[in-house]
Amino acid sequence: MAKRVTGPEIEKLIQLLAKVPGLGPRSARRAALHLIKKKDQLLGPLSHAMGEAYDKVKICSRCGNVDTVDPCTVCTDIRRDQSVLIVCEDVSDLWALERSGAMNAAYHVLGGTLSPLDGVGPDDLNIRSLIDRVGEGVVREIIIAVNATVEGQTTAHYITDQLAGLEVKITRLAHGVPVGGELDYLDEGTLTAALRARTAI
Amino acid sequence: MAKRVTGPEIEKLIQLLAKVPGLGPRSARRAALHLIKKKDQLLGPLSHAMGEAYDKVKICSRCGNVDTVDPCTVCTDIRRDQSVLIVCEDVSDLWALERSGAMNAAYHVLGGTLSPLDGVGPDDLNIRSLIDRVGEGVVREIIIAVNATVEGQTTAHYITDQLAGLEVKITRLAHGVPVGGELDYLDEGTLTAALRARTAI
Repeated sequence: MAKRVTGPEIEKLIQLLAKVPGLGPRSARRAALHLIKKKDQLLGPLSHAMGEAYDKVKICSRCGNVDTVDPCTVCTDIRRDQSVLIVCEDVSDLWALERSGAMNAAYHVLGGTLSPLDGVGPDDLNIRSLIDRVGEGVVREIIIAVNATVEGQTTAHYITDQLAGLEVKITRLAHGVPVGGELDYLDEGTLTAALRARTAI
Repeated sequence: MAKRVTGPEIEKLIQLLAKVPGLGPRSARRAALHLIKKKDQLLGPLSHAMGEAYDKVKICSRCGNVDTVDPCTVCTDIRRDQSVLIVCEDVSDLWALERSGAMNAAYHVLGGTLSPLDGVGPDDLNIRSLIDRVGEGVVREIIIAVNATVEGQTTAHYITDQLAGLEVKITRLAHGVPVGGELDYLDEGTLTAALRARTAI
């Protein structure tokens, strides 16, 4: 803004909101004005919720999930089948897989993928703790649910190598046509994978 | 989510973030995880900034702007020409007009437009205070900078009527081709207005 039109506290709020993914400088201003308009319904509760999250958030020391208790809600859920362990890159992947409701398994969040160019090696990921966890002898199957990217696949291979010798079944997510997806828009690699993994009707 | 995967505090944070304009349920989760990852750089400061804004925000009793002081930064800016008053619908319009840097004027925020169908009458807008302000005798020109919508134009007409008899020049924003706009994408009304208001080169 050329000249100041509002107080420094509100400008600070706009600046910080602009750093939230999904918001830019323009939508941050709109968001700030909306929050101020809904002062008691939204601004106050959101400020409180952020303070609560700031004070209480913990990274689960067992699986890497984000929660307010450690071990996390997922790790302490006795109704889950702890013999199946889904390994994913990020907490957002854990939440996404959980939304599918397809499995009633335990999780292990790697915290990223191997990426030598970015200086991310095995020690930067939660791989050691994964192997320790499998070594406890409860886990029977590991589902490697990493992204279908080069880094994801490299990481999957590395983990498979590290787990060699342990008595555990290792699987990975199927490749194929996304549900609702149109063939015309899919890349050749996906179509090849979908054809090769075709199933009987 | 089918089953709980994280603490209630974090779910509450996600729920509230989803109400921020520009964020939906999915991007709210992404935003929450980003905030938690950047706990000390972003979550803490943003929580603090929201608390500050909550405690200190005021609506300027003179012009309707949002600020932390009353009268606001714009109203108390002695370098502004208080004889020109830009009347706009919303605080976001004030900020947008101010970003253009085109005028060094004072503002008056109506807080909406007349809309009988939604039950918004003259008494729901800051029209009385506008007339009082003009009656002080300082204002020489009123620029009615409302949206080019039916409600906006109705409001502009109503204000013009109300100000009849007061010695003040009333103008409105020019209609025309937006800078950078392509004629092919413009509606007939805009093109007609742009042709009628053509200027000599």
